[in-house]
This record gives sequence, structure tokens and C-alpha cells, in this order.
Amino acid sequence: MTISVEHNHREHLLKSLVAMLGQQIPTAAIITEIEQLRAFECDAFTTMRQLPLLTVLPETIEQVQHVMRCCYQLDIPVVARGAGTGLTAGSMPVENGVLLGMSRFDQIHNIDLDNRTALIGPGVRNQAVSDATAPYNLYFAPDPSSQLACSVGGNVAENAGGVHCLKYGLTVHNVLELEIVTIEGELITLGSAALDAAGYDLTAVMTGSEGLLGIVVKIRVKLLPIPEYKKVMLAAFATIEDAGHAIAAVIGAGIIPAGLEMIDQTGIRAIEELMHAGYPVDAAAVIICELDGSAADVEDELNRVIRIFRALNADDIQIASNAVESKRIWAARKAAFPALARLAPDNYIMDGTIPRRALSQVWNQINQLAEEYQLQVVNVFHAGDGNMHPSILFDSSDESQHQRAFELGTRILELCIEVGGTISGEHGIGLEKINQMCLQFSSSELQQFHALKRAFDDKQLLNPGKQIPTLARCAEFNAMHVHHGDMPFPHLERF
Amino acid sequence: MTISVEHNHREHLLKSLVAMLGQQIPTAAIITEIEQLRAFECDAFTTMRQLPLLTVLPETIEQVQHVMRCCYQLDIPVVARGAGTGLTAGSMPVENGVLLGMSRFDQIHNIDLDNRTALIGPGVRNQAVSDATAPYNLYFAPDPSSQLACSVGGNVAENAGGVHCLKYGLTVHNVLELEIVTIEGELITLGSAALDAAGYDLTAVMTGSEGLLGIVVKIRVKLLPIPEYKKVMLAAFATIEDAGHAIAAVIGAGIIPAGLEMIDQTGIRAIEELMHAGYPVDAAAVIICELDGSAADVEDELNRVIRIFRALNADDIQIASNAVESKRIWAARKAAFPALARLAPDNYIMDGTIPRRALSQVWNQINQLAEEYQLQVVNVFHAGDGNMHPSILFDSSDESQHQRAFELGTRILELCIEVGGTISGEHGIGLEKINQMCLQFSSSELQQFHALKRAFDDKQLLNPGKQIPTLARCAEFNAMHVHHGDMPFPHLERF
Repeated sequence: MTISVEHNHREHLLKSLVAMLGQQIPTAAIITEIEQLRAFECDAFTTMRQLPLLTVLPETIEQVQHVMRCCYQLDIPVVARGAGTGLTAGSMPVENGVLLGMSRFDQIHNIDLDNRTALIGPGVRNQAVSDATAPYNLYFAPDPSSQLACSVGGNVAENAGGVHCLKYGLTVHNVLELEIVTIEGELITLGSAALDAAGYDLTAVMTGSEGLLGIVVKIRVKLLPIPEYKKVMLAAFATIEDAGHAIAAVIGAGIIPAGLEMIDQTGIRAIEELMHAGYPVDAAAVIICELDGSAADVEDELNRVIRIFRALNADDIQIASNAVESKRIWAARKAAFPALARLAPDNYIMDGTIPRRALSQVWNQINQLAEEYQLQVVNVFHAGDGNMHPSILFDSSDESQHQRAFELGTRILELCIEVGGTISGEHGIGLEKINQMCLQFSSSELQQFHALKRAFDDKQLLNPGKQIPTLARCAEFNAMHVHHGDMPFPHLERF
Repeated sequence: MTISVEHNHREHLLKSLVAMLGQQIPTAAIITEIEQLRAFECDAFTTMRQLPLLTVLPETIEQVQHVMRCCYQLDIPVVARGAGTGLTAGSMPVENGVLLGMSRFDQIHNIDLDNRTALIGPGVRNQAVSDATAPYNLYFAPDPSSQLACSVGGNVAENAGGVHCLKYGLTVHNVLELEIVTIEGELITLGSAALDAAGYDLTAVMTGSEGLLGIVVKIRVKLLPIPEYKKVMLAAFATIEDAGHAIAAVIGAGIIPAGLEMIDQTGIRAIEELMHAGYPVDAAAVIICELDGSAADVEDELNRVIRIFRALNADDIQIASNAVESKRIWAARKAAFPALARLAPDNYIMDGTIPRRALSQVWNQINQLAEEYQLQVVNVFHAGDGNMHPSILFDSSDESQHQRAFELGTRILELCIEVGGTISGEHGIGLEKINQMCLQFSSSELQQFHALKRAFDDKQLLNPGKQIPTLARCAEFNAMHVHHGDMPFPHLERF
């Protein structure tokens, strides 16, 4: 009986909404067929799935404004989606909500060479920006592993990073101006083409807000000159401690590499098996270091890095002598996660960030925890900026393993918080880490987040239930957490 | 009669507040004597003055929390003040409000070498951070002209820049974590020691919010390695156009100097008269260019810059051959504003930022406007990042000049907006530019700012009347503006 009432309600809502949307949006851009909706039920965190009420694929800013006005009037939630490559269920639909696909906003509006900026739609792929600006010797710095597929709008939503963000910053450091549509359908501009903008820094607030504050419809990104010269090296270490100290020593010497990555033995072996890149399979850890700048500068820094690595017992140092070899080293690193997929059916990728001084300590503690939970953890770190991606390998068809994997994940994030780090480096919170937000922040801090959210979205219609947990949710989670009860995670029905 | 009632109300308020504050704050830290309060009646924008109800000089975070709780309970406005070097009346007191002086928070709590950060109080002077970290070969990058005197808390409030922000960013790019006390007296932490933090980017929102959102009580700043090698040069140009093109050409060549400044002839002559630094007094403009990095890199870039400058008819290029000569060039530039004080009794310093491509166009238009208003304008630019500081020279004792100076200022800011720039590069809005915010932003955008403000300060007690104009104020201003009526600016009673 209840189900039938709910069903009727849903049908009624769907009908009203489709009629209202249809006033300004072509029928072909409104998707209501279950089979077609399946394509939008999850992002790359595939453990969590939910069909939306419908999907809209607008093509113009006016259409986005219309969608928002309809949803605001009918009190219907809206979840925005870029390319769907997110790793934290941030763009998973809400039941009885609209999934707003922004893929058709894929135009590069202009490239301003004097000011080194590009004005683009949020649906433009990350790599496409650098491809379009390469003829002018410019590129867009954020480079998440998914850069071939992910959209810049998604990069903004998650404040994405990448292997080069140690030197060139996260997305927030590479975005100057955003045009957004609010939940009430207003079009507003945040930031400016200049370095500073008057008023509160809403560009920074919007960046990393995971679709909870507004819909980004235009983005002005900074472009950087392609470095004149690059050098990539790979060094093998016999112990985790030496590798950890080597990272600290490079940074301590005042060198800021373009990339500084660390991979443990399991990771090395998995990558090598897939990519045959010449990674040293007997090493406890390898470090990949990329230096860029002028040729003289890079060669000088390269020699200093080699001396530091040798002093810490690096026993195999490969220096790429040309672009092909550099690409081979990086391609293998970027294939780390596909490579791990061959080791186990499921892979729970963490994204904690810790102060650099804690690197080898945390690495060792993670290995101890892995033993305790009887699971394999592979460590792939953006070590230079302390952003760790420990991957917990498990088989989700084994209920016990599944449960242990997520408990272990929570323990690892707690460890990050304990040493003064954070639970998200570049993947965002989404639904995946929403409980851990209760550990990271105090009630006052969460209340401040909620107050800010209400300032943009008083009806709580934008991507509801994601990123910032309610205080009630935290009370429940902390109670269970303190009593070491069963973790509710990741049972979808709780969200 | 009215006056007497108001006076009684004020006396009553003062008495209640002093009693309440006294419960946790020593009497000596509560200032109520008019003569002593005079020290706090304005910042460096001395045209605007206002005595506060009282001044409190807390020494501990608990005391700040107590002040806020008292004010929140009694509905008393609070204006925070750092070193009082601000240029936009941002820390000018409010009548019947508390002036919260943060000068006693002047401790450097720790310097973390592994993570290259320092944890400091907001009252620490900007220069003191770099002095304390110099033994470790580290420094704090933002360097406003007032860096000997200004506090880092003030830098955070105004999102201060400086001559090196082209390469090393504004304050927001050099702050990782803030502890703040809210208007309700809660202590919360924004950001983290890591590169990214979970949740909305409240660190960025707080930076540049001019005391309207909370009181900063602790700051974790990034430290940068002191560059191995620096080279400073001064080049003279016979026309403004050549100088403007030279700036664009340097940036267009992919060179990012540590500093890239431009000064016009009147500025050069005023500086030279005061400082005897060897500036070429017959040039239409000079450019100061500082390059830093490794020796090889700097020498290579220096040669490229010289070639660019020569191709654009630079007829006198001085290259500092040692630290003393570099210092001479910079010290003279940093003395530009004191030097201008010798030319006229008053100096209205603007702070617009424009896209680089518009530099010489805007420069010429400013000179035309100066002629129209029969006033002298001196142009000193942080040219590399398009941040202009045109200085309008006038005598405030001449009412007509005073009026024309502020009208001209408004025209210059409008010009910045027209070419796609902003009305503030690094000095903030305060009271000085609050009307121009009505030109820069739409009603929807201002409403979004107000909504954000309410999320932090529902009673509108923090630095009320500054930075973000009410829509009513803008309606009034725009009406007058459109009708070319008298500018109400800067009559204090209107604020």
C-alpha cells in the first residue's frame, strides 16, 4: 500500500517535471527510460548506485537556469555530473532527484594569450585544454590520472589534483573565474580575470564544493608555459624508511620537483606485470621524480637529487634520456590502479593527506593495520605533497572481506587525522567518506559548513546528503564508533 | 533631548560592557579614555575617523572568546584591528562598537622545517616571520610595502599582496590553516596543515574577508626557500607604450619574474628627489624587474629580458651587480608613496587590477582623465600582475579638489571594471571603495555575499557597514551615479 502511494507520488512528480522542463528543453535532452538512466546511476565508485528520477542534458546556460527554476519550484533535488570519473560517489543520483549531465558544455570559448587564460565550458575534458593550448606552448596544470576522460567541471567540483600539484597546485590554484547558476536559477560570476577579486573568495568556496552550492557553467582557467626542459628519474630503495627520508630530504633541500611519487613493492610488481616499464621488482619502494624548468636548472637539481638518493642507499637510479623514456615511466605510474585491478576483484582507494614528516611512520602503521585486518594494502603516494593513495584490495562478494576493507579504510583515515592530516587530498568526500567527516571536524565546524551551505541553497536541493554530514548523522556514527560497533558503511539505504 | 537620551544609552552600554568584559579581562587591557582611544580612530586611510565605544587588547584566545560572547549577548559591533596600516578604512571603528586590537598576539608558536610552515599569532609583523625563518633559509612570500609594520593578521584580513605576488601569490596562496573565533565565541579551525582540506574552502573565504566573518587568532603560513640567486634590473623607456609592451612581452615569453614594476615620470622624479637612487629622471617610464632562482637560470632569463627591453627601445638598463645595489633599487621603489607625500598634502592611492593586455591603454586613459579633472596622477604599477596603484595628488583643504579627487578615483575604478578588471588588487574594499562594489557586482552577486555573511554573523555585528554594500545603498548610489549627480563620497555620516 505504502509502496503504491510512493509510486504514484513519483509518477506524478515525474509527469509535472517533464512537462515543465519541456517548455524550454528539447524532449531528446530529457531522459526518463530506465535503461538509459542506468548510464548515470554511479560514478567510478561503483559500489554505490542509485537511479535518478530523470536525467537532463542541457546545452545552454538558459536551459540550466530553467532546470534549476523548475526544481526549485517543485522542491526536487539536483545532482550535477561531469564525466562520471569521480571516486567518492559525489555525482551518484538521488532518488526522486534530477541528474544534471553537463557533458554538452564542451566548448573552448576562447584562449587569451596575453593573460594566459582559457574560457571553457565545464564539460571540456581536462586533457583537451592542454591539447588546444599546446600550439601556443601553454598547458593546464591539474592532471588527475583520469585526465583523458574527466571534465574540468568535475575537476572544479572535486578540487582535483594530480601528479604535478606539488609544484603547480590543485584546481583551486588554477581557476580564476567561474560562472555559476544558483539553485534559484540566477546566473552569477565568481572571481575575475585578474589575480585578485573584490568581495569574499567565492571562487575558492565553489571549487571543491562537490555540486552542493551551485552549477558551474563556465570556467576561466589559468594556463602555464610548458616548461622548457624536463627530466624524469626512477630510484629504487631497499627500505621504506630510506624512501621516506629521501622524500623529506629532497623537499628539505629546497627543491620543488614537478612530481615526486612513491610506490611500494606490491605496486611495483603489479605495474611491471601489466606495463613492462622496467620498474625494479625487488625494491621495497621506488620514487619517481620529475624536475622541470630551464635546462641548466634542471640538470643542476637532478645532480643534487641523485646525491641525496645515493646518500640514502638508492641502489638503482634510472634517468630517462628522452621523451619516450619519460613517458614510459609516467605511463606505468598512471596505470597503477588498472594494474591493481588484476590482483583482486575490488580495490578501495583511499585519499588521505598527511604532513610529509609522518610519511614513513604512517606507511609502517598502514602495513601493521593491513596485517591486523588480514588484507593486502598497496601504497601509491603523491609523496611530495603528502597525498597518499593506499589501495585496499578485497573481494566484495566475500561479506567479511567487504566489511573489513571498509573498517580498515576508516582506520587509515583516522590515522591521517591523528598525525595532523586530512581525509581527502584530491578525490573529495562524496558519500564515501561522509562518516569520516565526523571525525575530522567538530560540531561547531560542521555547523559553520551547514550555515554556508544554507547561504547558497536554503532548500537543501543541491546534491543533498553528500560531503557534509548532518550533526544527527555524526552523533549516530560517533556513538557507534566509540563503542566499536559494526560500521554502518557502506549500506546504501542509510544515506 | 535626543542627544541626551543617546548619550545616556551609550553610557549605560559602556558600563554594562566594561563590567562584563572585566569578568575575564584585566582592567589594563580595556581602554575607555578618549585620549587613549584616539590611537585607534583610523587606519592609514586617515580621511575617515571614528572613535570606538572602547578598545580591548586581549592576550589569549580565551579572552577573545569572552569578548565575542559579551558583544554577541549585548548586540555590540566588533571591529578587529591589526597594525592599523590598512589603506581602505577597513579597521576604522564603529560608533558604539568595540575595537578589538590584536597586537598582543605577536608570538611565533613554532617553525616546522619538514613541512615548511610556521604557526604564528595574527599580531606578528609580516617582516618578523621572514626574519625568524631566515636562519633556516626560508621566508614568508607576501611583502606589502608596509611589511616592516603590518601584521600577518591584517595581511589575512585584506588578502595582501606585494611586489613579489606575481610569482609567489597573494596571502591566500601562502596561508594553510586558520584558527578563528566566531561572533558567538566558538573556536574553530579552517583548512589544515596539508595542501588540501576536506569540506568547503573556508580558509580562502576568511582570507580577504576584512574582519566581517570572524576573528583570526592563529595562522599557519607556508614558508618558501630563499632563492639561491637574484638579479634586479632597472630599465628606462621613452614612451608609455613601449614600457607597456615590454611588460606584455616578458610575460608572453614565458618568463615569470619575482617582481615586475612600472613607474611613470612624475613618480620617478619624486622618488629620485627623496632617495637619490640613480633613477633616470628623463624617462617616460621605468620598469624594475627582479628575477630569482638558480644562478644559471637567472642569468639566462636576464639576457632574454634585456633583449626584449632593447627591442622595445629601452635606452638605459641598469643591472644591480650586488645585494647593495639591488637593495638601493627596491628601497627607492618601496619609498614611492612617502616620496609622493612631498608633492601634495594628500594622496588618494587607488588599487585597481586590470588584464595585462590593457596596461598602456588604461595608463593613457588615466592620464586623459587626470587632465579632465585638473589633477596630477602618478602611476606606480605592479605591472606584471596588472595591479595598478595610480595616486591622485590633491589638497583636502580645498573642497573642490577634494571632491574632484574622489570623483576621479571613481572614474579610474570604473575604467578598471570596463576592461574586465577589479576594483581591488590587494588593499581591500573597507569603506573607501564600498560604493564601487555596486558597479562591480550585480544584485544577485551582492545577495550571495550577504547570504554568506549571514552564515557567519547572523546579527551583523562583525565590522558592519564595510566591504559589501547593502542593496539599498547600491540603489541610492547607482541612481546618483547614473544621473551624474554629486558623488556622496566620502562623507562619513553616510556610512
